[in-house]
Order: sequence, then structure tokens, then C-alpha cells
Amino acid sequence: MPADPAPPADRLLDAVTAVLLEEGFEGISVRKVAARAEVSIGAVQHHFPTKDAMLQAAMDRASAAFQTELAQRVPADASPEDALRALLGALLTAGPDQRSTAVLWVARLARAAVHRPTAEAHAREWGQLAGVVAGLVGRVRPDLDAAEVDDAAAALLALVDGLAVTVLREPARMPPARAHRLLDRALGIALD
Amino acid sequence: MPADPAPPADRLLDAVTAVLLEEGFEGISVRKVAARAEVSIGAVQHHFPTKDAMLQAAMDRASAAFQTELAQRVPADASPEDALRALLGALLTAGPDQRSTAVLWVARLARAAVHRPTAEAHAREWGQLAGVVAGLVGRVRPDLDAAEVDDAAAALLALVDGLAVTVLREPARMPPARAHRLLDRALGIALD
Repeated sequence: MPADPAPPADRLLDAVTAVLLEEGFEGISVRKVAARAEVSIGAVQHHFPTKDAMLQAAMDRASAAFQTELAQRVPADASPEDALRALLGALLTAGPDQRSTAVLWVARLARAAVHRPTAEAHAREWGQLAGVVAGLVGRVRPDLDAAEVDDAAAALLALVDGLAVTVLREPARMPPARAHRLLDRALGIALD
Repeated sequence: MPADPAPPADRLLDAVTAVLLEEGFEGISVRKVAARAEVSIGAVQHHFPTKDAMLQAAMDRASAAFQTELAQRVPADASPEDALRALLGALLTAGPDQRSTAVLWVARLARAAVHRPTAEAHAREWGQLAGVVAGLVGRVRPDLDAAEVDDAAAALLALVDGLAVTVLREPARMPPARAHRLLDRALGIALD
């Protein structure tokens, strides 16, 4: 078989995400991704030797899109409070492509529960995020000590996590507007 | 092949849970469950025609264990506030077998994102739970109107959800004792 020209990674990741949205992580296979991206099985394997590599790359792409969106939303001279509200609000609606990012997110969470490298990557990224949130909380609330700041940041992130999953699972009971309202209220209590 | 005597459902569910803990939902197969439970493939198929039926049955069993544990923890004459604290605290540590229940929980969440019957079962159970929590919040805070009670209950449940997942994912950063402390603080604010 002649070598494929290396297909753009984006096209492969679009295929990974599409299969994930329809069938979950358990539905992903090299064969299905290759068929959907219209490339050879070898080309998929060249980019992604394992299903976990596919999931990680799809998550990395979603994170990069999230960072880009956030940078557009938050002016460089935003106050710490505005930056914090924008960050948590953006996490709640999970970036530019809400449903696919949320499905990616829960797939990764489930995978992290049973696959150590995914758990480590996940903890590392989440730890960085917790550090950013704590840094902003500390600037808004200089009266709090470091442990209080960390607790407030951890509680806000846990609330956002729980709300985002509830929006995904039960949009009728928890439409995004309601989730944002509940987050705003918690922010008001944490930051006042 | 002679018919198996019907194996106890518990033994099959132990096998389902063990495979789920090691390999996630994507690792479950009739063959693996049969081998681990030491029954025939036909016996597994008789009880669980699909992987989703296995996941649902394992979740139902964990929910029943949770209910039993909760009933033991909360005296029948507990105040609404004590009952609410016990319920949310028990949710946070996810029942008697914390890790396996938490892994089941995130597997189900991920499956619900892509499998409509699982999503419907999940939303139904979660809606019932939200109703119970709102009922208790309403008894502790008779000064709130119904919408305020629902919001307080939804925010508490989302926080518990997010904290429980954080404990599973990053026990070093979020040990159970810290999660309980953050929940207590949120309860103090919501109920005062």
C-alpha cells in the first residue's frame, strides 16, 4: 500500500470527536476513525498509536480552543474579578463547542478513573487550573489567608464541574442560563 | 452445553464491577464477565443481554447499598437539617464502597452522554434525588420561596457532584475530609 500523505491532525481529531459523540470512548476504534476521516488505518495509527492518544489529543485541542476563546473574552487589563468570572463562566459552558467538549470531558473523567496516565494528565491540567483560579481569588480577596483562598477556589471549581455536568445530563432541569445564575450567586458569596 | 444453574446476580455484578474498576466500561465484555464469575457466556447473557444492562444493574445495586447505608446513618426522627447533612455527606463519599461506586458513577455519566436510555434513567434518578434535597432544604428554610429552594438544592447537589469527582480524580489535592469541610461550609451558608 502506498504511504498516505500525512492527513491533517485536525481532520483525524474531527473524526475522533464525531465517533466519541455518537458512541462514547468505548465506540472508538482505529478502523472507525480511519473510515470517517477517509484515510488509511496506517495513517491513523501513525498519528495515534492508541485510543488513549486519540482522547488526549482531542482534549488538548479542545483545551487550546478554550484558551483562545477565553483570551478573546477577557481583555488583558481586566480586573481579577472580571477575569475570574470570565474563566469560570467559560468553563461552565465548556468552550466554543459546548456539547462535544462536555462529552469529551466526561469521557476523559471516566477514563482517568481506570487509566493511570490519563489520570495523571488530568490531575496536572486540573491542578494548573486550580492554581490560576486561586491566584485570581487571592487578588480579589487579599484579606483571606492562603488556605482560605485555596478552599474558596476549590469549592468554586467543584461547583462549576458539577453544574457543567448537570447541564450536559439534564439541560431541561439545568439550562445553561440557570447554571450561570447559580455560579454568579456562589461567586458573589465567595468574593464579597 | 448443559444449562447453568442461574448464578446469583450478585456474583455476576461483582464480576461486572471488578472489570469496570480495572478497565472501564470500554473493557467490559460478556466473555470477561463470564470468565471472572466462572459461569458460562450464556448465563451472563441470560441476566444481562447488553453491556448497558450490566452497567444499569451495577448502578442499581450501588444505589440500593447507598439507601441502606443512609437509612442506618439517619435516625427516623432526625431533623430535616441533620437528614440533609447526612444525605449530602453520604453522596460525597459515594456509599459503602467509595471507589467502586465513584468509578461506576463516572462510567455511567460518560455513557449517559452518548446513550439515550442511560441518560433517561440517570436523569430520572437524579431528578428524584434533587426533589428529596429540595424538600429538606424547604423544611430547613421555610422563609425561601419554591424557586429559591430549588436553586439552593441544585447548587448543593452540583457542589457535591463536583467534589465527589474531585476526590476520585485527585485524592491528594482533595482528600475526603477536605471535601466534607467544603460541603459543610456551603451547607452553613445555604441553611443559615
